Amino acid sequence: MSKSAHPASRTIERLRQLAEIGRVDGLQGTTRPGLDLREQRACELVAKWMREVGLDVVWDAYGNLFGSLPGSQSDAAEVWSGSHLDTVPDGGSFDGAVGVLCSLEAVVASGRRPATQRVVVFRDEEGWRFGRGFFGSRAVCGRLADGELETRDAGGVSVGEALAALAIEPVAAPVGLPASYVEVHVEQGPELERQGLALAEVSAIAGMAGFAIEFRGLSGHAGTVPMVGRSDALTAAAEFVLAMRDAALRIPGAVATVGDLRIADPAANVIPGRVALSLDLRASGAEQLSSLTDAVPAIARAAAAVAGCTAGATPTWRHAPMAMSGRVRAAIRDQAQALGHSIAAVPSGAGHDAGIMASAGVESGMLLVRSRNGGASHSPDELTDEADIAAAIEVLTMTLATLATC
Amino acid sequence: MSKSAHPASRTIERLRQLAEIGRVDGLQGTTRPGLDLREQRACELVAKWMREVGLDVVWDAYGNLFGSLPGSQSDAAEVWSGSHLDTVPDGGSFDGAVGVLCSLEAVVASGRRPATQRVVVFRDEEGWRFGRGFFGSRAVCGRLADGELETRDAGGVSVGEALAALAIEPVAAPVGLPASYVEVHVEQGPELERQGLALAEVSAIAGMAGFAIEFRGLSGHAGTVPMVGRSDALTAAAEFVLAMRDAALRIPGAVATVGDLRIADPAANVIPGRVALSLDLRASGAEQLSSLTDAVPAIARAAAAVAGCTAGATPTWRHAPMAMSGRVRAAIRDQAQALGHSIAAVPSGAGHDAGIMASAGVESGMLLVRSRNGGASHSPDELTDEADIAAAIEVLTMTLATLATC
Repeated sequence: MSKSAHPASRTIERLRQLAEIGRVDGLQGTTRPGLDLREQRACELVAKWMREVGLDVVWDAYGNLFGSLPGSQSDAAEVWSGSHLDTVPDGGSFDGAVGVLCSLEAVVASGRRPATQRVVVFRDEEGWRFGRGFFGSRAVCGRLADGELETRDAGGVSVGEALAALAIEPVAAPVGLPASYVEVHVEQGPELERQGLALAEVSAIAGMAGFAIEFRGLSGHAGTVPMVGRSDALTAAAEFVLAMRDAALRIPGAVATVGDLRIADPAANVIPGRVALSLDLRASGAEQLSSLTDAVPAIARAAAAVAGCTAGATPTWRHAPMAMSGRVRAAIRDQAQALGHSIAAVPSGAGHDAGIMASAGVESGMLLVRSRNGGASHSPDELTDEADIAAAIEVLTMTLATLATC
Repeated sequence: MSKSAHPASRTIERLRQLAEIGRVDGLQGTTRPGLDLREQRACELVAKWMREVGLDVVWDAYGNLFGSLPGSQSDAAEVWSGSHLDTVPDGGSFDGAVGVLCSLEAVVASGRRPATQRVVVFRDEEGWRFGRGFFGSRAVCGRLADGELETRDAGGVSVGEALAALAIEPVAAPVGLPASYVEVHVEQGPELERQGLALAEVSAIAGMAGFAIEFRGLSGHAGTVPMVGRSDALTAAAEFVLAMRDAALRIPGAVATVGDLRIADPAANVIPGRVALSLDLRASGAEQLSSLTDAVPAIARAAAAVAGCTAGATPTWRHAPMAMSGRVRAAIRDQAQALGHSIAAVPSGAGHDAGIMASAGVESGMLLVRSRNGGASHSPDELTDEADIAAAIEVLTMTLATLATC
């Protein structure tokens, strides 16, 4: 498979080009918010590369980008492969983009097969801009929430307004769902590096849930209100952050993260009167997830009470744990073995568009590629080796060829 | 003193007018950051009122505004009275402005005396924009820090640039220090309301110190990094907030406040890698303040260690406890008694420009006016009654007349 060296080095060069879109002065990483013009420019660059290799390029009404290689049998159900091009703030250059670019190489290398093969770029996978992830894949699967297009970002722009600003000309007929979907993604964890393996296929995607938490106290002068009797919303938030950490520590494999926390009208000499924060909960099983999410309101109330405050806890999104398809998993494993690559089987703690596709009945699988630097993720330290990307392209190529043939 | 009803009702009306400068849509209060154009417009309105009653108006190079009533003896040391016009974010309309407007009424009512009397408006007393308070009074007293004009706000504007944007034409000769300074201010606490008294004079201003604290961990994916082994900078910050609360609770009369806390690049699905926060410490005695400030670096290190992070704690400002002048205190007390007003003597937990003036050797005193609503302060709920303001104007008038005569 020596000719595969070329696709992988081309992919590395393209990752470099994409990383420049959304580069911020003074930061090492890249910031491409979902449905933002920076994500759009990245999609347009990939669309150009799709056209250069002869794929048919269309966009849907939600900004998702498709590059198709038509199949020889018009009634054969489609096979898709792809990922996303948005990033977290000051994120790395591999998360999402590696999957899109590997799919582009693999669909072309797989060549014309009975079933149509599509490279897909799902929009706003990360979800930090509007508070919900997997926008593009949920849109394709008909799973947008009521009123979701009216959700606004911190700058007051709604999802609908952001979409309109992209000035996309969507394809006339909605794009239907495929029979199967395969997503390549960087591992985002240290496990493969530890095991000395380049690749893993995913057994299941963890269940996850989000909450918007608010603590309300009484703002006041930092010098004139005694410690006893304060209603300090930041103290309540601090109690909550630590209590959620402790709750997650009690459930094996569960994680709880407060990634965003904002004081209303922060000032050094004012006791915080209102604090809003995000809560992200994940667990491998449905029961573990529920035991964690069920505890949130009481933990928030207890944290508020200690600090003389009140609390609100609003569930914002939830995704059940999602098993990957046995047929797709077997195809990935068989092709990896045929190509001489050892491959691990792991659960994914990260959510992925593949989980959304699976929940809509699409037979889905994921091929994870080793992350270097201890699994650094959502940071400029993200790194995946060219040789590992070459292996992923090989395995994905043969997996798509198999799925698009049988 | 029935003619005093008029100055107090005029003052209430002027407080209403000032509150409209810096009003933000959707908020109840007023936001006038120090050295911002909103604070400048408030100063210009007061300068207009100064001119209308015949005071000589000048500005100094730091934006401080002076309205002078020249004395009859050119060698008599000056007597100043004033306060500030900047506010905290979404602040009330009494803090600062009451002192400026009472001084304006009192200097005019005091009338021509041997010593020159000046109404002074000190700039950026609150200090949240650039991280340090008492800018104007420190500038008058020659106490600006090295490089302070290069300090930048969150938007990247430096103190020097902010001053230049005000387009002030400063008076040619620097304004020298007065012999004495009297500041009227709202109490900002519940004590006078509880005692049923309108007025208090301040025995001493609490010692206070600020720190800039930073916690550095490792940002990472909220779903793929296990709880054990995380380096979550927000968890470190939460431990610190609670530990500082506990440390302050152990020292009678001491307070510790984290009023500002920011996650670098916050996103719901990213473990915070860096958190910066402010710390404001106050205590009535120098020893109590030192025992609190000395503990900060170790408390920050311990909080960081629990969360697998590192910490930095930088002292940013410090003001020793400052006793008010016996002579000015006696003048205030004597005039209050002569006018039939009971007056309390209290320490001030809030810092004031009077503390800066006192530290520069100016004989200083403060007249506090009862705050309603349980002493609500730094919030739109701030309230002080017109009758109490009338009493403050009466007492201040006679105090200035006394100080400018003897």
